[in-house]
Amino acid sequence: MAAVDTSLPAEPTGAAAALAEAHAQPHALKLYGGWFCPYVQRAWITLVEKAIPHQYIEINPYNKDPSFLALNPRGLVPTLAVPVGEGEKKPLYESTVVCEYLDEQFDGEQHGERLLSGGPYDRARARLWIDHVTGKIIPGFYKLLQHTPDKAYSLDDARAELHKNIRSFVNEMATDGPWFLGHTFSMVDIMLAPWAKRLWLIDHYKTGGTGIPKSGEGDETWDRWNAWFDAIVERPSVKATWSADERYILAYKRYAEDTTNSEVAQATREGRRLP
Amino acid sequence: MAAVDTSLPAEPTGAAAALAEAHAQPHALKLYGGWFCPYVQRAWITLVEKAIPHQYIEINPYNKDPSFLALNPRGLVPTLAVPVGEGEKKPLYESTVVCEYLDEQFDGEQHGERLLSGGPYDRARARLWIDHVTGKIIPGFYKLLQHTPDKAYSLDDARAELHKNIRSFVNEMATDGPWFLGHTFSMVDIMLAPWAKRLWLIDHYKTGGTGIPKSGEGDETWDRWNAWFDAIVERPSVKATWSADERYILAYKRYAEDTTNSEVAQATREGRRLP
Repeated sequence: MAAVDTSLPAEPTGAAAALAEAHAQPHALKLYGGWFCPYVQRAWITLVEKAIPHQYIEINPYNKDPSFLALNPRGLVPTLAVPVGEGEKKPLYESTVVCEYLDEQFDGEQHGERLLSGGPYDRARARLWIDHVTGKIIPGFYKLLQHTPDKAYSLDDARAELHKNIRSFVNEMATDGPWFLGHTFSMVDIMLAPWAKRLWLIDHYKTGGTGIPKSGEGDETWDRWNAWFDAIVERPSVKATWSADERYILAYKRYAEDTTNSEVAQATREGRRLP
Repeated sequence: MAAVDTSLPAEPTGAAAALAEAHAQPHALKLYGGWFCPYVQRAWITLVEKAIPHQYIEINPYNKDPSFLALNPRGLVPTLAVPVGEGEKKPLYESTVVCEYLDEQFDGEQHGERLLSGGPYDRARARLWIDHVTGKIIPGFYKLLQHTPDKAYSLDDARAELHKNIRSFVNEMATDGPWFLGHTFSMVDIMLAPWAKRLWLIDHYKTGGTGIPKSGEGDETWDRWNAWFDAIVERPSVKATWSADERYILAYKRYAEDTTNSEVAQATREGRRLP
């Protein structure tokens, strides 16, 4: 990387530190993560929601352990080490693939309801809206967060794009109950939760913030969004995988200044597909 | 659209015309397709592979039927009309979602083996390599096909990128048997088949063509690729969903000149994520 930011705190803090500590003992199923990475948080939330026994290993992005690189030469987190056969382990990566694997593999009663539940049509519809989160809402989050005055688009353009894509998502939500599917918490909620939890960073760093109206201002779509949002940020699995707020301010400063060299940030800068 | 090319033939021909004709009768499960669209071909191959009763409806991209637009306002193909409950139908789109739905929904003995088969780890690994096809190989196909002398990259750059991404895919193939998984034909094969079947268009339109070596020139990776490729282009479901070669030459001329306004072509031109 061109400009390594070694000032980034290397370890989780707060609730996430306690969770990592509780899963520090060796276990055949290992999540290699980074405390500040939202894609990691998707996998971490899934492990917590389903009470899946595992080992959590924090990867220092600027000093990656050789045993981790041996498992996943691309060196990206989240990576899941999956036990297969006699003491052998294989890597999985891509947060959507990791989460769907965890949901399918840990299917016993002790793991609760399936997160991608229902029949084939229900699962297909969930996948469509997960695609919308990954392909539309998340790129819009970074486009707004990484806005700088020299960009070809304005802050208002970026806000309008993010609003539009959140609104089409919200319009698909069940009306009754807080979650996307209504009373059933599902993979669709998990896929967006880490970025919802980080929206305040846009308020912190960008003039005018996210611009999302509060409830009761006469817009039913935003009222529905706010009900979902309030439920998500209070969800125990989301809180359990969260470090101290001030650490995220440090971690995202270089995003807000558009100077970080993370793969997501570079793709956003160049208008490319996120990795 | 800025410049509609109404010279594009509106109907399938050859084997695909016979298949469409055999599935012209009304049926609750409907595939809205376009004969020249490779994303449609993914869904069409899946229907054929699993012998799924359905109706095929050709959509003229320049004159979309109102009943189709009512079902999918975005107007993109493939769209699947799925019967749910009493005479109601709902839309599915995105070829990967459509194909996985068909595989899960039509699971009886008469439909053969699952195309996404095995346990959770096997399915996760298949999804990783499907992501590689969709996110790496296919964009590389269009980047090479749409190369023009005024591009910032050379034909050789585009060829090298395509080769690199095909080679990492091939290196994951089972060694025994022609398919990605060896002797088992699977969703991974289907996901790449339509673009493999169109590689000759690059030979037709671009100086130096794909540049993929023939077998027996001492490179095991290309030998393995060629074994897969030869099997794919002879697969009955691939042949059954194919129109006359000369029609593709017409359909892809504007891609080769980089003047088409399809969503895929525009995204390629601008270096954006494919839709």
